[in-house]
Amino acid sequence: MNNQSLQQTFLRIRSNKAFELFVVGVIIFSALVVGAKTYNIDPALLELIWWMDHGITAIFLIEILIRFFGEERKRDFFKQPWNIFDTLIVVVSLVPVDNSDMALVGRLIRVFRVLRMVSIIPELRLLLNSLLQALPKLGYVILLMFIIFYIYAAIGATLFSSINPFLWEDISVAMLTLFRVMTFEDWTDVMYETMEVYPISWLYYLSFIFLTAFAFLNMVIGIVVNVLEEEHQKERDEEALAGGRPSIETLSMQVEELKRLVEQQNELLKNRQPSP
Amino acid sequence: MNNQSLQQTFLRIRSNKAFELFVVGVIIFSALVVGAKTYNIDPALLELIWWMDHGITAIFLIEILIRFFGEERKRDFFKQPWNIFDTLIVVVSLVPVDNSDMALVGRLIRVFRVLRMVSIIPELRLLLNSLLQALPKLGYVILLMFIIFYIYAAIGATLFSSINPFLWEDISVAMLTLFRVMTFEDWTDVMYETMEVYPISWLYYLSFIFLTAFAFLNMVIGIVVNVLEEEHQKERDEEALAGGRPSIETLSMQVEELKRLVEQQNELLKNRQPSP
Amino acid sequence: MNNQSLQQTFLRIRSNKAFELFVVGVIIFSALVVGAKTYNIDPALLELIWWMDHGITAIFLIEILIRFFGEERKRDFFKQPWNIFDTLIVVVSLVPVDNSDMALVGRLIRVFRVLRMVSIIPELRLLLNSLLQALPKLGYVILLMFIIFYIYAAIGATLFSSINPFLWEDISVAMLTLFRVMTFEDWTDVMYETMEVYPISWLYYLSFIFLTAFAFLNMVIGIVVNVLEEEHQKERDEEALAGGRPSIETLSMQVEELKRLVEQQNELLKNRQPSP
Amino acid sequence: MNNQSLQQTFLRIRSNKAFELFVVGVIIFSALVVGAKTYNIDPALLELIWWMDHGITAIFLIEILIRFFGEERKRDFFKQPWNIFDTLIVVVSLVPVDNSDMALVGRLIRVFRVLRMVSIIPELRLLLNSLLQALPKLGYVILLMFIIFYIYAAIGATLFSSINPFLWEDISVAMLTLFRVMTFEDWTDVMYETMEVYPISWLYYLSFIFLTAFAFLNMVIGIVVNVLEEEHQKERDEEALAGGRPSIETLSMQVEELKRLVEQQNELLKNRQPSP
Repeated sequence: MNNQSLQQTFLRIRSNKAFELFVVGVIIFSALVVGAKTYNIDPALLELIWWMDHGITAIFLIEILIRFFGEERKRDFFKQPWNIFDTLIVVVSLVPVDNSDMALVGRLIRVFRVLRMVSIIPELRLLLNSLLQALPKLGYVILLMFIIFYIYAAIGATLFSSINPFLWEDISVAMLTLFRVMTFEDWTDVMYETMEVYPISWLYYLSFIFLTAFAFLNMVIGIVVNVLEEEHQKERDEEALAGGRPSIETLSMQVEELKRLVEQQNELLKNRQPSP
Repeated sequence: MNNQSLQQTFLRIRSNKAFELFVVGVIIFSALVVGAKTYNIDPALLELIWWMDHGITAIFLIEILIRFFGEERKRDFFKQPWNIFDTLIVVVSLVPVDNSDMALVGRLIRVFRVLRMVSIIPELRLLLNSLLQALPKLGYVILLMFIIFYIYAAIGATLFSSINPFLWEDISVAMLTLFRVMTFEDWTDVMYETMEVYPISWLYYLSFIFLTAFAFLNMVIGIVVNVLEEEHQKERDEEALAGGRPSIETLSMQVEELKRLVEQQNELLKNRQPSP
Repeated sequence: MNNQSLQQTFLRIRSNKAFELFVVGVIIFSALVVGAKTYNIDPALLELIWWMDHGITAIFLIEILIRFFGEERKRDFFKQPWNIFDTLIVVVSLVPVDNSDMALVGRLIRVFRVLRMVSIIPELRLLLNSLLQALPKLGYVILLMFIIFYIYAAIGATLFSSINPFLWEDISVAMLTLFRVMTFEDWTDVMYETMEVYPISWLYYLSFIFLTAFAFLNMVIGIVVNVLEEEHQKERDEEALAGGRPSIETLSMQVEELKRLVEQQNELLKNRQPSP
Repeated sequence: MNNQSLQQTFLRIRSNKAFELFVVGVIIFSALVVGAKTYNIDPALLELIWWMDHGITAIFLIEILIRFFGEERKRDFFKQPWNIFDTLIVVVSLVPVDNSDMALVGRLIRVFRVLRMVSIIPELRLLLNSLLQALPKLGYVILLMFIIFYIYAAIGATLFSSINPFLWEDISVAMLTLFRVMTFEDWTDVMYETMEVYPISWLYYLSFIFLTAFAFLNMVIGIVVNVLEEEHQKERDEEALAGGRPSIETLSMQVEELKRLVEQQNELLKNRQPSP
């Protein structure tokens, strides 16, 4: 009983708007601390920042514990991926780092605390989810693009590796070079170099650019059409839900019923006709 | 009474088409003067331009006063943001600038007079308003993008600041560098440099490019869908407004009424049937 | 009478499919000749090309004359802009050019013969027309963009002309530099240079990039929405034209008529009721 | 009879899911082998790869034979373009290559085996087909763009070939340079060079960029509208197919029938009226 009332208290704290704002404030503050550390600051301030870092970790730990104990069934807490992410960030922050190699890793982990912004603001969480959901639908276009990249990289590494090993040494380096060509970043320098040995190699670059641009365009159009259709579907569902708004089907049924009525009447009239 | 008739006169001038065209002409002329000043011109012409500048300021002052006194309730004048903008431009132009440091500021302020083009042409004002209105809808995508930039800049400034301080010294410089990477401007030079120290850092750049490109794409698609839906909504509203055009609902009601009539008839016939 | 029969003959030639294909063939051939002239060719071939050039001009002249005399009312011929274009190209080709300064101009004019491809293929003519028709609709966005360019160029020429006169000397050069910045072409080089004098000048470039990108995006979306709406309108017009397909309005009228019939019946029945 | 039962067996193998997955696995393995060959590997491994290459060829040969003999009518096998592609890849792989010039060609052909991924996965085959089908619809825009390129290249090669032969020597080189300008790749370097001789030549580049960007934009919009319309049409077709869902037409017919019934009634009533 005592346990449950405690859980209720934690749940109340968790749902408190002020508590939420306070946590958002701490995250923003931690982001500023992360940013401040990239500047050249005098040691006194660094000391202060070291203390603030630990303070932020403590607050995050308390916040996670409140949210954990506020959960009715403890197991449900770890069913939400964002909770796991938050816990991981806090737990890793707790690991003490000596001022050697691990210090850099420790600093990088503190950077990821800024991502807690996404986990705490529902609109951002929704946005990221919708972004991630759009990805698998593009699966086959991405696979096709990877195949194009792989084939061109294999050809490039086979033919051009002796011309410029830095750009074409093996297939992975060649794929990076092809990505560079795809972003049009100094791609003519790459081309002019290989054209000196293989004058026809402009065909390699142009066909690659056209293929990837075309596949990319198709991907974008695919997303646009997809989004538009979803909106369309949502709209129609809303219309259908808009309670009893008659459709052409119901209208047709009404007219059919009316016809039956008139036919009954006709029968009545015909039966009476011979009587007089 | 005299005061009001004066206001009416000013209002008449303000609404005059010729007056409006004259002001547009003066603005275009002032834009040309602004442009001319960037060329090397001989002092005699400069003197002339100095006089023209003052003439334009005088005309703008008179125009603002006419528009101000043409307003029925003086307070309403400052409720329109464009009026405030216009007044500010004119008032600042009136401040005398000696030929020292302030001269440059004075010249820059005269440049902003060209923006009066937007404040005076209603279509441009409308366009700018619609542009500004689209911005807040994108709020969360912009926030998400800022978080992505911030995290990558913090990582970049932490890891790469010793490699090239010019590009990665602190978080603000790193954000500028990342914006450069996002525009694909010589981004491979930036990457190749850091890859010499951290060979895996291509992952940093590629993931950043994919994330921002994806978020940007989503933003664009969001705007397109938004605009299309607004158009759609406008269309439906117009249809609904198009005065008494029967919908399926009204049709259904008509058929229902008809059924009631036929049923009444059936009642009439049945009542008469036993009678004969 | 003889004159008219001649006109009929010309008209018949003009409408002949084979004649049209022949002209298309000659245009393609003239395009190849234009292309061939850019290569280093030996004088003998050049002589041949000189003759071919004249042959093509002669054929084009004859073709124009056939089309002109095939027209029933000669004045109508010059009402079509493409006819004027064709005539101009041919007439200018006829002007003899001595092998001096004018030779280059003569060669350039021959290049524009390739554009006759557009004037002769109806689908291309239609496409170009639709492209040109889309332009005026974008009028205000283009004006807004020009104002943005002008203001930024005036600021740039005022502040940066002493830093790099090649890029910022006067307002026209500054506009070209800004167009370069807009295409992201080595824009950071331009920025880093001015940032050495005005460290805050990154704001100038970033705000410019955002403003133009945003305006450009709006322009693109404007075109997309416009095209989609036109397609939509066309569809609805086709539906409306699809001969007597009943709309909800006609249906409503039918039901209304039916109601009147039933009401008449009711009157009949009521009048008869008291009679028995 | 024996022959036919063999064909049945082959057909059963061909339709076997495990067999398909095995072939996909072999293709992925062959892709990895292709990639591995671009790295510097020690001779022992190269020997192994040589054997694996032959193993893959053998498996592909067997697979093609199974698919060929599994076909009921042997002629139908070559009616599918992908079968021809697969057979070609395998047949060319069988040609023995001595370690001279042909070795490189042999390696390149092995690269194309990765494309078998597309021929074996139905979704990728579908995607590529839809990509290819979209191409002809864009025929005229591509033709228009080619004409723009050709005219500008002819002008460029005529005027600028003496300034920089590397970029403008003849029409084909000029077209490559223009493609570079279109991708905004160091286009200002190209422009600044010619502006030294022809100061007005910025007009050449800017008009080219605007024309191609505009044509490209129109092409993209054309595809988007096309795809959206196809989706729209598919939707309507599905609705129409959704079995007897009444349209406004059928409803109108129902009402019309009803009117006839009521009119009959009226006739009945009128005929009876005089009788009493």
